[in-house]
Amino acid sequence: MQPVALAHASRLINHGPTVLVGSAHGGRRNLMAAAWSMPVEFTPPRVVVVIDKSTFTRGLVTASGHFSLSVPGRALADVVCTLGSESGAEVDKFERLGLEAEAGPVLGLPLLLRGCAAHLECRLIEEPHAQAAYDCFFGEVVSAQADARIFTGGHWLPPTAANADLHTLHHLGAGLFGVASEAVQARQLR
Amino acid sequence: MQPVALAHASRLINHGPTVLVGSAHGGRRNLMAAAWSMPVEFTPPRVVVVIDKSTFTRGLVTASGHFSLSVPGRALADVVCTLGSESGAEVDKFERLGLEAEAGPVLGLPLLLRGCAAHLECRLIEEPHAQAAYDCFFGEVVSAQADARIFTGGHWLPPTAANADLHTLHHLGAGLFGVASEAVQARQLR
Repeated sequence: MQPVALAHASRLINHGPTVLVGSAHGGRRNLMAAAWSMPVEFTPPRVVVVIDKSTFTRGLVTASGHFSLSVPGRALADVVCTLGSESGAEVDKFERLGLEAEAGPVLGLPLLLRGCAAHLECRLIEEPHAQAAYDCFFGEVVSAQADARIFTGGHWLPPTAANADLHTLHHLGAGLFGVASEAVQARQLR
Repeated sequence: MQPVALAHASRLINHGPTVLVGSAHGGRRNLMAAAWSMPVEFTPPRVVVVIDKSTFTRGLVTASGHFSLSVPGRALADVVCTLGSESGAEVDKFERLGLEAEAGPVLGLPLLLRGCAAHLECRLIEEPHAQAAYDCFFGEVVSAQADARIFTGGHWLPPTAANADLHTLHHLGAGLFGVASEAVQARQLR
């Protein structure tokens, strides 16, 4: 993992991958899967993610004012599916699934040590109406990292066989993920 | 194109594709590319899309209270790139690019006749703060359609050679699109 300039941080979720939302507060931590996130601004780098009222994550995020977004690679598909199907209220999902975490560089949030293409740490922006009406949690990115095998110099590299484990997942529904395993360089029509 | 039940409409953009935002008002119409959209609710089906203050689309959407989101397939990559690089203020992009449109079934919005995997028509939900602070336009889906070669019975089909032209585009930046051309069926870990 290499640091990514904050000016490039929003690019890490520009293409709509399913993400993992990390959270921690008061000695508890959690990781949930979320298909619904997007950037809303490049500078300052701001994002929004939908966190349902029923989730354990929501309480941790609200209490701490922090969350992380990680972009899991294809090799984590079963982990993502499982993280999206279980609640962290009763069990520490990291321990149950044997997942190693490391502390994020700015906020200390639990980030998966292996298998992710990128990590963002975010400070929650207080937007009570958006949270209540749409479960939308806005945040400002305060740290960004990416695996240089697939994102370097501020840009995504085309997916190839050499970085196949990091190809991003896009949830089509019911555990079926589209994998961004090809790329096309579009050109502007004259 | 087949109608999609509104209860399944949010699934059409669940996986983070780059979309085309259609708009029309007072005899003008437009189509822009947008990488930043997501569902926020399944029932009622609600979505949000980022529409920058500088765009011609924003005025049409604000004036009409309507917008459409279409999911372009891979064969439209150059069109998407071009629609995202030009303003519709000076020129009708449909005419300039030779794009045929048909009227959406409920709101009459201009929808691309060919090359899209899905179309949604949306009624704008008034959220002045989200629009001003984050360029976020929330909408409720009032019509949904999809190409039965890739979405049928309320579900996405796995991408195959038979529906290759409809594989969705995911903007990595600078005209480079990831293409969801493979699928993986994840399983829940015990």
